[in-house]
Amino acid sequence: MKKKLLYEGKAKKVWATACKDEYVIEYKDDVTAGNGLKKESIAGKAGLNCAICGRIFEVLNAAGVETHYIKTLNKTEMLVKRAAIIPLEVIVRNVAAGSFSKKYGVEEGAGLRSTVVEYSLKDDSLGDPMISKSHIVALGLCGAADLYDIDSAALKVDGILTEFFLKHGMKLIDFKLEFGRGADGKILLADEISPDSCRLWDINTNEKLDKDVFRRDLGSLTDAYGEVYRRIMN
Amino acid sequence: MKKKLLYEGKAKKVWATACKDEYVIEYKDDVTAGNGLKKESIAGKAGLNCAICGRIFEVLNAAGVETHYIKTLNKTEMLVKRAAIIPLEVIVRNVAAGSFSKKYGVEEGAGLRSTVVEYSLKDDSLGDPMISKSHIVALGLCGAADLYDIDSAALKVDGILTEFFLKHGMKLIDFKLEFGRGADGKILLADEISPDSCRLWDINTNEKLDKDVFRRDLGSLTDAYGEVYRRIMN
Repeated sequence: MKKKLLYEGKAKKVWATACKDEYVIEYKDDVTAGNGLKKESIAGKAGLNCAICGRIFEVLNAAGVETHYIKTLNKTEMLVKRAAIIPLEVIVRNVAAGSFSKKYGVEEGAGLRSTVVEYSLKDDSLGDPMISKSHIVALGLCGAADLYDIDSAALKVDGILTEFFLKHGMKLIDFKLEFGRGADGKILLADEISPDSCRLWDINTNEKLDKDVFRRDLGSLTDAYGEVYRRIMN
Repeated sequence: MKKKLLYEGKAKKVWATACKDEYVIEYKDDVTAGNGLKKESIAGKAGLNCAICGRIFEVLNAAGVETHYIKTLNKTEMLVKRAAIIPLEVIVRNVAAGSFSKKYGVEEGAGLRSTVVEYSLKDDSLGDPMISKSHIVALGLCGAADLYDIDSAALKVDGILTEFFLKHGMKLIDFKLEFGRGADGKILLADEISPDSCRLWDINTNEKLDKDVFRRDLGSLTDAYGEVYRRIMN
């Protein structure tokens, strides 16, 4: 099914297929943190992320969100719609954590008066700097109407996934999304949604079940991701 | 008239007066850059900034902007309305320059598709980090309705001052504003507007007539500010 490697990122490969409007995403066992400064390969991570991400995209598709996800092909590959990625990371925050806590001097775990939708410019050479909507439009990275759609979609995804993870005993603290423009010009939710890109805390113990286990050396990454997998497949 | 020193900043002192709703702002000859790393005292700077700022606030008051400015008292002091400062720097950008150019890899002097209104959290210990409107509301720094008023006021001030400086042979590249809440609870434009807080370029030569002269060691600061003074007083 895979024809030509289009892109290789830190944790995924993207392949062209025989159909020009469909790509294959292949998950890798590699895990990185700190903009690639910390790096490891962890057997089994690709399979866990592919399965978890597939399940999440199924939930979002069923709830009417326009995503790139078509179907899961095997343990580490999924078929998706072609999308030209908009070079923005869209971060949704329900609880203060990570870079937000550090940057604004807010204790990790503190509540917020309202949900934050935060943007970063995807540009490794510039260090993925935070960017505001006013900058995005002024730099022509995305039109104001598309940005409105992205902002709204991010909040809808937050609602669906907050409810979904809660049902499975986890708090969705924050997560990162990427959007792209599909073959028909429509904005699609793309990339992945997995414990690599979400902060998930156990609802009772606040145990971290996400990439912070790797970033902060808190234990076995596959144990944590395996726990997320078992819970959401129940 | 001055009674008690309330606050001493890098370039100004704020004094209480016999009237509880009025303060005196006293300009200092000190000039700093790089969050205080570069520092000098330049005789005559206080007087130039006080005169330029007074003239700008007169223009804004006449155009109907709600500002804290009442009147200029003498060469280095002005009388203003009491305002509780909202801890945000509001930066308006018409042309790419300074930290914006560096952060997003855009050449200084490049045009923008639309005017940028950018916010920073005023907190020296955190390094005055950039912040977006979504963060501001989530952290309770300012309500959404007040933030809307601040955003609108910043754009109106941009329009008035762009026209004013153009008339006097200067391009307004970008500038920083601060807002406060007045005795009656209303949002007021506060702080100062001067070549310390604006980028002003000569309309024909692009010669810098602002604090970049000091930041980048381009010549005499008082020559540059003196030129702005002479032009706008004409």
